Order: sequence, then structure tokens, then C-alpha cells
Amino acid sequence: MLARATPFLLVDLELLTDNIRAMARLAADRGLALRPHVKTHKCTQVGRLQKEAGAVGLTVATVAEAEVFAAAGFDDLFIAYPLWVDPAKGHRIRDLATRAGVRVGIDSLEGARALAAQVPGCPVLIEVDSGQHRSGVQPASAGVLAECSQRAGLDVRGLFTFPGHSYAPGAAATVAAEEAATLRTAVESLAQRGIEAHVVSGGSTPSVAEADAEVLTEIRPGVYPFGDAQQWELMTTTPGRIALTCVATVVSRAGGNVVLDAGSKALGADRPGYASGYGRLLDHPDARVVLLAEHHAVVTWDTSPLPTLGSRLRVVPNHVCTAVNLADELVLRDGSSWPVAARGANT
Amino acid sequence: MLARATPFLLVDLELLTDNIRAMARLAADRGLALRPHVKTHKCTQVGRLQKEAGAVGLTVATVAEAEVFAAAGFDDLFIAYPLWVDPAKGHRIRDLATRAGVRVGIDSLEGARALAAQVPGCPVLIEVDSGQHRSGVQPASAGVLAECSQRAGLDVRGLFTFPGHSYAPGAAATVAAEEAATLRTAVESLAQRGIEAHVVSGGSTPSVAEADAEVLTEIRPGVYPFGDAQQWELMTTTPGRIALTCVATVVSRAGGNVVLDAGSKALGADRPGYASGYGRLLDHPDARVVLLAEHHAVVTWDTSPLPTLGSRLRVVPNHVCTAVNLADELVLRDGSSWPVAARGANT
Repeated sequence: MLARATPFLLVDLELLTDNIRAMARLAADRGLALRPHVKTHKCTQVGRLQKEAGAVGLTVATVAEAEVFAAAGFDDLFIAYPLWVDPAKGHRIRDLATRAGVRVGIDSLEGARALAAQVPGCPVLIEVDSGQHRSGVQPASAGVLAECSQRAGLDVRGLFTFPGHSYAPGAAATVAAEEAATLRTAVESLAQRGIEAHVVSGGSTPSVAEADAEVLTEIRPGVYPFGDAQQWELMTTTPGRIALTCVATVVSRAGGNVVLDAGSKALGADRPGYASGYGRLLDHPDARVVLLAEHHAVVTWDTSPLPTLGSRLRVVPNHVCTAVNLADELVLRDGSSWPVAARGANT
Repeated sequence: MLARATPFLLVDLELLTDNIRAMARLAADRGLALRPHVKTHKCTQVGRLQKEAGAVGLTVATVAEAEVFAAAGFDDLFIAYPLWVDPAKGHRIRDLATRAGVRVGIDSLEGARALAAQVPGCPVLIEVDSGQHRSGVQPASAGVLAECSQRAGLDVRGLFTFPGHSYAPGAAATVAAEEAATLRTAVESLAQRGIEAHVVSGGSTPSVAEADAEVLTEIRPGVYPFGDAQQWELMTTTPGRIALTCVATVVSRAGGNVVLDAGSKALGADRPGYASGYGRLLDHPDARVVLLAEHHAVVTWDTSPLPTLGSRLRVVPNHVCTAVNLADELVLRDGSSWPVAARGANT
């Protein structure tokens, strides 16, 4: 593997392209628009592959991410977040709107009014809570918020939700059904106020294969171009399809375990309750990262002999979105690299 | 609070200076050299305050961190890590050594030989495991490794350990005693081979007040300039001494909780088993971050009324080292900022 200093993120372009095409086919087969969430890769080159494969536009989490992608020429961006828009943020959104089509999420009347004061006529989607209990209104309240938002001067295009509770073993089908039921109630709630939901947007990487195309019009999966150890353990990908790994060097075996130089500052510290460790090894499925410090991953090994000091191994981060956000670039197998252009774009 | 877009990291310079001076006094009172670990702040301005307060030199985790601090004029750096030194890394260490005094950690004969081949005569400290079981040799084996390292052509200066298992409630005194016993055994193991441990280095922020000055010569705490929610919950700091917070905006209350725009990409996802949540609120000690997504912190509130949408709150990250590594700058109360110069310096 490339002589570059470890740790670094290595991308397999062939697998990446396969994953991007497979999701585009899934969306096309179901008659769903695909609007991938770029928070996962923060990389304009990956965004371009997604567009080329048929994505209708992109999803971002922040105004700063939208600014990076607009500057690179992307023109149909949805900020899937209930922004609080003060004058400074309003200025940035108006500026974005001159360069790219921008939609914004809302989940409160106060938020809608603040947005409308800054960006009159801004296209919005009402966020509904489909069971993750993070943000979003209850579906039966979507109509009231939509009507008030229209009155405040916003252009209500429809609804969105993030079924994030799909990140649990065996939950995908149940959560997709819950998502569909929530969105149906919300569509009806808008209809009762005479408002049509032109866009009904949902979908997470684990649940997207079960997304209900009768109510949804659009899906916004993020992780699928790369996959990660969470998806592996949720069985929504297989090791052979994982397109991003963190290449790390064995630096210690002094305690009888393998210690790698990729810690929480390279992999991210994410460890959901269902995960079997802090990451997996692509080529050693029985190994587990059992302790993660900032620059150490302590790995319990499988039955094969311990790798020698100085060996390089491919670690699959638990959560690829946070791992990518720790890196300045993604390295391809030919040694070239792509900048993580929206790294740290939190505002 | 400053009109800057949230989330951002806010540093209270007065508290920072107080914390830096208090640790310097503790070290001086005990007759211990203080070599702070800069992985926490990655900021040359903070390093300078530490040096001005009496630090003998600095500790870093990676060659890349050492390069940043050497470029800023710091001249006595200890890379407290069992580096695997290939020719490329050897070149960088030799280059560093021309600009700054550099010591390197080792915990294996193979590692020592690889280092010696690249950097003949390199000053080293032998790493011993004092109970965290991350890296480091058993203390009784330190003498053999020290002797072999000398034969390989390295300059063995002494020993180091990181008592990281001090990160548990009530563990500080026990762990400091374990650290001292380990180091005593290791010093004796070197002595049996006729090697004197000039440097005996240990100490973590939670355990440092209990460090045994009869065996240790040096301490390397990292977190103490800022403090964080881990230290707060371990009762090794108090909220009134915490010098760094993440300023975040209330973006949603739709689900009955407070949702802030600082998620795992601003705070880090660290959550040790003893932590009561994913972070604390400095001004609301009963509030808890119960769910952390990439750009959402869901906070259960205390008995006071929920803050209004658009309010700004100060979040105390669980682990300040990973939070700082996600930011490009630290913002001071006067609106100026310091770059996180060694952000992402993982290699």
C-alpha cells in the first residue's frame, strides 16, 4: 500500500463508483429522486460522480457545506437542517441563492419567521419527526407550520424527515414503515390546509432499500458511496463493497495485542451501542478495535499470527462521515488525492 | 456572546492562564519537571503560555505535531509515542533534530532498531505499561529493552508511562500508586543493567495531583489548560475553572428538548462509560446532551424554562482534545482568534 505516512484515508475508486451507480439504479427503479447527502464525503469529486450517475441535486447539513459545493458549480442544494437564520446567515443564504438553487429545512414558526425576514420567498421543506426524536415537528402539526410559513412569505415545497433510528440491528423495515406512515400523515396534514407536498423526502442508508415509493418522492442517503463498519454490522453493506479505509501502521505489540497508529483523531470516536468495537479491519473480520485513544487503536486479533511491527492494515471506521471530516484529503490507489473541501464546514 | 457563526470554540484567557499557572505551581511545589502534552490544544500560543509559566519543554503525540511546534520555535520536544520509523519518518526526525531537541518513545526492540537505523544516537525513553494496557512493555522488561536499544545505538535517557486508566471515577489515587510502583520496578530493571533513568515521566490530568515525586521526575498532563466535561465528571476540575466551551445556537425545540447546532463534528463523539451524556452545558449543570448527531445535540433540560430559539449556549465537550482537533481556530472573548496550528497533524 502507498508509501504515504499513516494514518490516511484510502478510497477504492472502482468500488466507490459501483456503490454510487447501485444507489442510482435503486432510486431509478423505484421512481425516486436521489439527492445524496454530501456530509459523508464533503468532496466535490464524489459529488460530481453522484450527479453523473443521476442524482437530481445534493443534500448538505450546513450553509458552509452549501457554499463549498456552490463554489464548485453545484446548483441544486437542500440544506436539510432547521437553520436558525440571523442577519449574517441570511446574507450568506441570499448570496448562495444567486448562485445555486437552495432549499432550507424548518421545524418551527419562529425559525420560519426568522428565515422569511432574511430570505423572503425562500423555498423550504417542513421537517417532521419520524421517530428519531431529534428535530422535526409531529406529522399532524406539519400543515399548521406549512400554512404559517406560507403566510410568513416562504415557498413551502413539501416535507422531509430523517429516519435515523434505522441505525439499529434489524430495524430497517420497521423504521421505513414508520417513516412512510409519518410522511403520509404529514402530507394529509398539508392537504387539509390546501397545500400540496411536491417534495416528500426521506431515506437513510440503512433503510433506503425499504423506502416507500408510494409516499416518498426523494431519498437522501449519505454513507452509501463508502460504507463503514456500522453499515457492515447492520448488514446493509458487505466488506467487499466498502470503498474507504484508514490505512494504519502496527506500532506496538508489547501488550500482546496489535496497536495501530490510527486513533480517535483519525477514525472518530463514534461507537453506537450495537457496534462490536471502535472499528473493524477490512482484511481480518474477526479482529476488533477494543480500545481507542487519540493515536492508538488497540486491536484484539483473530487466530492468525500477529502482524509484524511496521505492517500496514486497512481499518474500517465505525462512522465514515466523522472519519472523513478529520482528514484533509482522500487518497486514491494511484496515489493521487481529492481534497475534503468541506471539512470542518460546521456553520 | 460574540456574533460569530456557531458552532465555535470560545476560550476564556483568564481561566486558561490561571489553569496553566496552577499546574506549573503544582509541579514546582513537588519538584517535578512539567512537560505539557500539546495534543490537547495544538496551538502555539497556548504552548507559549505553558513555557512562560515554567514548562521545561513540550510533549507531542506525532512527528507532525513536533514539526508544527518546532517551526514555531519550540526547542525541547518529546514524542511520547512508540513510533514506527521508516526511511521517510526517519528523514523527518533527523530534520527536526537539527532544529529542536527531540526525544522519541520506544516499546519494542524492532522499533528501536528501525529508529536507530534512521536516527543514530536518537535520545529515547522506554515506554512502560502502568495498567492502561495500550502500549508499553512490562516494567520488569524495561532493562532488557533499554540495554538492547543502547546496543542498537540509541541514547536511552529513561522511562515514560501514561496512566490513562486514571480516567475512571475515584481512580486517581490508586492509579497514581500503580504508576509509581510500575516506574519503580522499571527504574530498578534499568539499574540492573547498569543504566540510569535520568528521566522518569508520567502523569495524566486526573492523576497528576497524586503523582509520586519520589520516583517521577517529570509530568505530562494535557487537558488541564482547558478542562472538559470528563474532568468535571471525574471531579478533577470544577465548572468555574473550565476555560473552553463550544458556543452553540438553539435551532429546534420541536420535540420538547433543546436542540443545538453543535454535533459530533464540533464536539467529538467521545463518550466514556462513566459520562452522564455527550457533553455538559456550562451554565446549566442539570442539562444533559442525550443524543448527538453530526450537527445536532439533543439536550434534556433542567427545571428552568427552555431557552428560546436562536439563544446561544456554552457546551462543555466531553473530551476537549478531540473537540479542538475539529476546529480551525480558538476564539477569544475579545473576538480575536488563535489557529489550531497542529489540527489533523496525525502522522
